[in-house]
Amino acid sequence: METVERLIRSTQELLWERGYVGTSPKAIQREAGAGQGSMYHHFAGKAELAKVAIERSAEELRAAAAEQLAGDGTAGERIGAYLSRERDVLKGCRVGRLTADPEVVADPELRKPLAETFAWLRERIAEVVAEGKQNGEYPETLDPERIAATIAAVLQGGYVLARAADSTEPFDLAVNGLIDLLEAM
Amino acid sequence: METVERLIRSTQELLWERGYVGTSPKAIQREAGAGQGSMYHHFAGKAELAKVAIERSAEELRAAAAEQLAGDGTAGERIGAYLSRERDVLKGCRVGRLTADPEVVADPELRKPLAETFAWLRERIAEVVAEGKQNGEYPETLDPERIAATIAAVLQGGYVLARAADSTEPFDLAVNGLIDLLEAM
Repeated sequence: METVERLIRSTQELLWERGYVGTSPKAIQREAGAGQGSMYHHFAGKAELAKVAIERSAEELRAAAAEQLAGDGTAGERIGAYLSRERDVLKGCRVGRLTADPEVVADPELRKPLAETFAWLRERIAEVVAEGKQNGEYPETLDPERIAATIAAVLQGGYVLARAADSTEPFDLAVNGLIDLLEAM
Repeated sequence: METVERLIRSTQELLWERGYVGTSPKAIQREAGAGQGSMYHHFAGKAELAKVAIERSAEELRAAAAEQLAGDGTAGERIGAYLSRERDVLKGCRVGRLTADPEVVADPELRKPLAETFAWLRERIAEVVAEGKQNGEYPETLDPERIAATIAAVLQGGYVLARAADSTEPFDLAVNGLIDLLEAM
């Protein structure tokens, strides 16, 4: 793998595990097996490399969600498949966890891919909910934008509860509770 | 205020803003207006002081939630009041945000108050949901443990979405979507 690619993937991994504040340029170089000169030859610094890594993680998240939310099933089936897909629950969401990082949310360039990812995700889920309304799966009164935010929040909050408990159980309970509520519509 | 109390409150504030990894003993001493000697006279180090500060934040969270979930209203009214109470949404949850901190979740002593707080919270909400079932507000089939996890997750995930967007809007949408789903039961 090329050095640039190794630097990006190592930064993605370190940001997921340790966050932005907890990731030093030295740690990135060690993880990527790249020298300091090489890193600064390709990137102006930690912020620029982090921006590229966050954008890459955001793209990967969007591609996975797009695939799960597409398909031929009913809206309920597709939302259920998206909610229930296998996840590395105790590691949390590599995009969502960055919102805990004060230096990420304070930097418009670093926060931008986070904002865009969740805006896209909520819009995509809202489309599926709206399709479910048209198919008669969901009642006319259901607000797709609200329900989409609720669905995205349950996943992000499920990670928080699971990491607090050091167990995937609360994540599974939260997701299944939401599926129960949606199926009762 | 006594030095010990100033150290604890400053650490609570710094952990909320910057997390555990991002909070240095120097920053705590500066915020508390306490010298290094004074801090290490009262606490063995950052980890011990953080433990006391996290326990304090956890107690405060539990006390606030207990008050909002108590009272004379129906289960739906009490859950609605808990979900809708005024929050410092863009700052996030001072207990939940610590789950993004690898050194907190890796240290059983530091993770313990997080685990206990959310276990307590989910149990307390489940009791209210169970009361709602007995009152006939919610159907017999509703699983209180699942719904309680969903409710706790929507709040924690709502903070994540709000911080990503730098706007309280997604938090409000997520909470209102959940209230819509619960009211339709």
